[in-house]
Order: sequence, then C-alpha cells, then structure tokens
Amino acid sequence: MTEVDQVENDDYEDDIELDQPRLRLVQKAIDARDRMALDDLLEPLHGADIADLIEQITEFQRLTLVELWSGNIDGEILSELDEGLREELLSSLPAEDVAEAVRELDTDDVVDLIENLDDQSQAGVILGALDDADRVAVEQALTFPEYSAGRLMQREVVIAPSFWTVGQAIDHLRTAEELPEQFYHVILTDPRMRPVGHVTLGKILSSPRDMPLADIEEDSFRTFEATDPEAEVAYAFNQYHLISAAVVDEDDRLLGVITIDDAMSVLDEEAEEDILRLAGVDSEGSLSDRTLGTVRRRFPWLGVNLVTSILASLVIAQFDAVITEIVALAVLMPIVASMGGNAGTQSLTVAVRALATRDLTGANVWRVIRREVMAGLINGVAFAIVMGIVGVIWFGNPMLGAVIGVAMVINLGVAGLAGVGIPVVLEKVGVDPALASGAFVTTVTDVVGFFAFLGLAALWLL
Amino acid sequence: MTEVDQVENDDYEDDIELDQPRLRLVQKAIDARDRMALDDLLEPLHGADIADLIEQITEFQRLTLVELWSGNIDGEILSELDEGLREELLSSLPAEDVAEAVRELDTDDVVDLIENLDDQSQAGVILGALDDADRVAVEQALTFPEYSAGRLMQREVVIAPSFWTVGQAIDHLRTAEELPEQFYHVILTDPRMRPVGHVTLGKILSSPRDMPLADIEEDSFRTFEATDPEAEVAYAFNQYHLISAAVVDEDDRLLGVITIDDAMSVLDEEAEEDILRLAGVDSEGSLSDRTLGTVRRRFPWLGVNLVTSILASLVIAQFDAVITEIVALAVLMPIVASMGGNAGTQSLTVAVRALATRDLTGANVWRVIRREVMAGLINGVAFAIVMGIVGVIWFGNPMLGAVIGVAMVINLGVAGLAGVGIPVVLEKVGVDPALASGAFVTTVTDVVGFFAFLGLAALWLL
Repeated sequence: MTEVDQVENDDYEDDIELDQPRLRLVQKAIDARDRMALDDLLEPLHGADIADLIEQITEFQRLTLVELWSGNIDGEILSELDEGLREELLSSLPAEDVAEAVRELDTDDVVDLIENLDDQSQAGVILGALDDADRVAVEQALTFPEYSAGRLMQREVVIAPSFWTVGQAIDHLRTAEELPEQFYHVILTDPRMRPVGHVTLGKILSSPRDMPLADIEEDSFRTFEATDPEAEVAYAFNQYHLISAAVVDEDDRLLGVITIDDAMSVLDEEAEEDILRLAGVDSEGSLSDRTLGTVRRRFPWLGVNLVTSILASLVIAQFDAVITEIVALAVLMPIVASMGGNAGTQSLTVAVRALATRDLTGANVWRVIRREVMAGLINGVAFAIVMGIVGVIWFGNPMLGAVIGVAMVINLGVAGLAGVGIPVVLEKVGVDPALASGAFVTTVTDVVGFFAFLGLAALWLL
Repeated sequence: MTEVDQVENDDYEDDIELDQPRLRLVQKAIDARDRMALDDLLEPLHGADIADLIEQITEFQRLTLVELWSGNIDGEILSELDEGLREELLSSLPAEDVAEAVRELDTDDVVDLIENLDDQSQAGVILGALDDADRVAVEQALTFPEYSAGRLMQREVVIAPSFWTVGQAIDHLRTAEELPEQFYHVILTDPRMRPVGHVTLGKILSSPRDMPLADIEEDSFRTFEATDPEAEVAYAFNQYHLISAAVVDEDDRLLGVITIDDAMSVLDEEAEEDILRLAGVDSEGSLSDRTLGTVRRRFPWLGVNLVTSILASLVIAQFDAVITEIVALAVLMPIVASMGGNAGTQSLTVAVRALATRDLTGANVWRVIRREVMAGLINGVAFAIVMGIVGVIWFGNPMLGAVIGVAMVINLGVAGLAGVGIPVVLEKVGVDPALASGAFVTTVTDVVGFFAFLGLAALWLL
C-alpha cells in the first residue's frame, strides 16, 4: 500500500499553483530561450494557471513561449485566456493545433470561444475542426441570442425515460458510448423528449436496482428556456442552490443542460461588470488591454463627467460676486460638494447592488429611501456641527459656520434621496443603474451642494 | 404515460418564483390576518424566496406572519435570511421550533448560523438541539478561525479505501445508513484516513464493477487545510473548476469536504464586499438595516472624506489672493479636481479588481502603471483641448484656457499613477486596497488638481 500511496501522493501534489517565483523563472527561461527549463516549469501547471501566466508576460515573451514550448496551447488554456489575447494567440498558432485544441472542448466552451472572435475566418477554422454532430450543435447554439441560456448550455446530456428503474439506468450508463466530462443528474424525459424531472447520481448509486427513477426524483428540478437571459439563469442557480438544470425549446423539448460552473462564471462576470460600471469603466476591458484600448474605454465616462462638472461650474458662476466679496467661500465650497458626492455614492452603491440581487423591490423601496434620507440627514447634522466649528475657528465667522453646516445637512439628505431614487428610476425605464447612476447622483449633489452653500451665503453673509 | 407526466409536470411547475404581485398578495393576506390565503400563497414557494419575502416586509408584518402561518420557519429559510433578521426571528420563535429547524441542516449551515449570533444563549439552544455527533462536529468547526476552510466544510463525507473496486463502492453506498444531501465524489483514503484521490459518481456509474477505483481517479483532485482562508478556497474552486474538495488537518487526515455551492457563496460575498468597500460602505451592512445602523456604517468613511477635503481646501486657501483677483478660477477649479477624481477612480477600480483576481502581480505591475499613466495623459490632452476652448469662449481669456488645459493633463496623468500605485502599495503593506484606496486616490487628485490649476494661474495670469 505505502508504495502505491506514495506514487498517488506525488501525482496530485505535482499539480502546483502558479506563484511569483515560478513566474519569474518562466520569464527567465523564455528570455534565455531555455526550452528544457521551460518545459519543466510549465509541465506541472494547470491550464488555467498557464493562461494566467500568458496574460502576465510581455507580447514578445508570449510569442517566444508559443515557439519554444513543446507542450500545446490546448483547448483548456484557450478557454481560460482573456478574449483579446485569445485572438492574438489563435492567429499565431498553426490551424491544425487550433483544430486539435478545440476538439477536446465541450460544445459550450466552443461557443464561448467562437462568439467573441472578431475575425470570422478563425471561427471557420474552429468550426471546420469539429465533427459533424458537434458542429451542428455549436451552430445551433449560435442562433440563440447572446447572453442567453442557449449559448450557455452544453449539448452533452444524460437522459433516461421516466419509467426506467435504477438498474436500467446503471446498465445504460455502463454501455453508453460517450458521456459528458462532468454530469451530476440523469434527466428523466417523456416520449416526446420533454424533461419531466431529474435524479442525482448519488441517489442512483445508493438506491436498489429495482427502484423506479420517478420515485427518487429531486424537488429542485427546474428548466430554463433557451432564450432566457443568462443573468436569470445565474440568479436561479444561486437562489435555489441548483447544480445542473435542463434547457428546453419553446415546445418544452430538451436541448441541453447548464451546470453550476457555467452559472458561477456568469455570476462572477456580472459582479465584475457592476463593479467596473459603477466606477465608469466599460466592462469589456481587461488588464491585458493596450493603452489605446484603455483610452477609448475610459473616455466616454470622463466626457459625461466633464459635462456634469461644467453644469456645477455654471451654478458657481451665478455667485461670482459673492465669492469676490468673501473668498473663504471658494475655499470651503468643495467640502460641501465632496461630502454630498461621497454620501450619494454610498447610497447608490447599496441601491444598485440591492437591485441586482433583487432585494430592493416595490415592496420596500419607500422604506429604503426613507432610511437613506434619514441617515443622510443625521450624518449631515453630525458633520454640520464639525464643519461649523472648523468654519468659525478657521475664518472667525460664526455665520459662515452656520452656512456651511446647513448646506451640509441639505446636501447629505438630498444625497440619500438621489442615491436610491435615481437607480430605481433608471431600472424602471430600462437603463442599467450600475452604468448611469453615478453621473446623475454626483451631478445632483454637486449642483445642490454649491447652490445651497453659495445661495445661503448670499442670503446670510452679504 | 401521459397521466403520470401530467402529475410530474404539475409537481415541478408548482415551485414558482416570488414576484411582485405575489408579494403584494402576501402582504394583503398578512394585513387582513387571512391565514388560509397566506398558507396558499406561501406553500408553493422555495425556502430562499420565503426568506427574501421576510426581508422585504415590515417588522410588524414579519411578526404577524410567524404567528399566522401554519408552515414552519425551517432550517433552509433561516440559512437564507439576512443575519440581522435571523437573530430577530430566532428570538421570536419557540425553542422547539428552532431545534426542529436546525436538525435538518448540514453541519456547515449550522456553523454559519451560530457563528453570526450575537446572543450566545441562542447558540446554546441550537447546539442543544443537535444529536451528539453533529454537535461535536459543529463545536470542532467553531474552533477553526473565522473565514477558514474548516468553517466552510461539511463533515458529511463519502469515502472508500483506495484499493476498492467500483462494485465494492456501489455495494457500500447502497447499504450506507446516512449519505450527505448532495455529494459529487467518492474520496479515496489510505489506512490512516488521509485522502489520496477522488472519483466522480459519473465515472463510478459508467465503469464495470471490477474496475479498481484507483484507475478512474480524477486529475482535478486537490485538498485544503482546515486553516486555509476561505478566500483562497473560493479562488481555487473558480480557477480550477472544482466541484468538491477534501479538507484535511495538519497531519493530512480527512476532516470534511467543501462543495462548489459553498465556494460560490464565498465568491459572491467577496465581490459584494469589494463593491461596497470601494464605495466606502462597511461591508457588514444589508438592506434590512435600520436607520441608526446605516448612520453608523456610513459615518467613518464620510469622516475620512471630510479630513481629505479639508486638506484640499487648505491648498485652495494658499491661493486666495489669486482667486480674489480672478474669480473665474473659483468657477473652473472643481472641474479639474472632479476629472482627476473620476479618472483615478477608474484606474483604482480596475487595479483593485485585478489584485483580487490575482491578475495584477509583480510581473506586470510596471506595465499596467505605464499603461494607466499613458491613458491618463492621452485622455488628459483630449479634455485639455476641450476645456481650453470652453475656457476661452466662456471667459474670453486664452491664457486661462491654457492653464486649465495643462492642469488637466497633469492631474489625469497623476490619477493613473495613483490609481494603480496606491492599491498595489496598500496590498503590499497588508491593508485591504478596496477599503482604503478611494480616500488616498481622491486626496491625491484633489490636492494635485487644485495645486496645479491655481499654481499655474498664479504664475501665468497675474
């Protein structure tokens, strides 16, 4: 036993993670064109780690790696790569290597590979490499809308007639020619290929052979239509703890199956997209973008911000006479605007996330708005007192302290209202609240902040 | 067949989602104290949806629901509830209902329930309700650090000696007394209970009975130590597409197993935490918080922001003589600061996410910084031209246009540098970059923006 164990232990402990020292050694081996060292360093790595490695080295190192490495850029590595780099690499690989790489993949991964290619001739090479059944499956998947369940599903399914017993299912599985890489349920179908339930493999394994499959069905069975948006699918997987779910056409016939790892990627991408959009970054970007791609991706939001900050400046311009009189106003006014902007961003981020997770609905929106406004007002009073004191000490003018304090309370209250109200309204009219709320909310808090502060100053100080 | 299918179809289509009309009907039934209507409305809902419903109604409605509803607040509903509400509900439920609810749960869910309770007497009630084996398992899990693999794992595992055949494994599963709710692998162990590999249920089902389990092991086998942080575990599940993984103690002995749905929740929580922290919201908050909780959670970041904006004001104060001379400076200066703040936030968000997903490392940090600075400078030039023209048209002063243009280029370049550099440095010194970067970056862009703009104005315009 000990002998065997040792070997097995070695076997899995070989599969090590990519760390910084190893990455540096790989770069050294590439720069020195040391093929043997490169092979030794890459061999124990998982495909996902090799993809990460390829993303982190320079373009020149990438090309040398492809040339030197005796291993292959396989389907797994391609699936894991950033979209931009994937295309770069596909075009530098010989067509037969690409063909071999894609043949190992499940159909959903091939769809993922093809749908993001700008270069249609590469798509042709990939489709040409597949056998007929897979090609038809991929081409059919591509007829479904982008980001739909139909694109996400794999065609490889394991089914059994709903009247079968456990023994029949096991015998069928033992003699099946080709089974999916990973599967977790046997889907029960009626004679028209409509899925009517599913059984976990654990239940099949632990039940007697004469047990009817229909008697050990899971409660959790749910189906999706191929045209359902992938975001809905991911939400349902997360909400109902699904492991796999059948996908059907408009006549309820079985088309394929979506598994939890696909749903996990979608959920991950959605959260990533929300984070980046909240910061005004176009979500298609990635770390391996080049400078000009980055410039293009950042420009639109900065443009929107320029317009909104000019709006705020127009408000200030109305009060130029007051500022000339009391220059302390120019010194203090950014504080009021900045506090409002920050409080508004806090509220809007909470609201955008709650909308995304469906926690903020018609049933509680007024309660949440009331809470945010109240919280804004209470924090406003606290900071009003602090800033009132700072104003008096700094400029020796109690009325100036009163002006900044009252403006602060007003702006933080408005920030709470706008922070929840604007995302909710945007969602209602069908605009992604993560993308557009920031611009609107900071415009409101800038304009209200400057107007309240300078307006009160004009009334009380002149 | 058709008869049976019909029944089965009804069965799963019953399990409907919670939508707005149903939520309103539930609220109506509660307000009218209509027990029958309430039971009819809640009966077909999944526990996760009932938890969502409980989160969205008012506190008074919650208490009425618990009193009226003939169904039970079961373990599933409790697990899905927001932490704050969970405690509220636990204290309003009779002890025997709580006991019944927790007995259905896997040990990892019980651990999750207990570790977040402020009230230790409630923890005692829950522990007391468990049978001895489960209680020992939960108490042992609680000895591991918070947010560790040991807290995340469930103790229910399915194992087989590594020398068994498929047939032996199937016979063992058929006669096993109690199997976990969900399991995806049989873990192979050596005589000392050290896991040495694992086999998928699909492989067991599709292999002949005399096949040795060791011959159909998965490559994907990985183990975690009980003290590994849960964030590492979630990263590995996502990176290597794991479905389940064994957890071991310091002597490599099997302690339990972590499944993909647990990893998915952790990943989800981490993303949520990053989103909220980037916006300066303490991550423990939730939508069902009360006003005072919200005030407390928002206050610290607003306080930090007050200090940083006073710093920026101190810069402005140095130039009060220039502003008195040319009041247009006061009108235009917020534009430069705001553009810098936005560009900095874009860069820092990309950097914080790339650090979280381990895409930004020592190998590419300089390339990313160079790219961000270049992108900032290029966008800076574009907006400098726009603002230069706006400045000339608005105030009829070409030199003013030049001042705002040059200040814009400087500030957007600095924004790119600070946006990547600050999160990277914070990560190095062990501070969460999501939490602290925002304050530092906007301080830099405010100070640099005001200083560059007003300083150049003092040099060129006076």
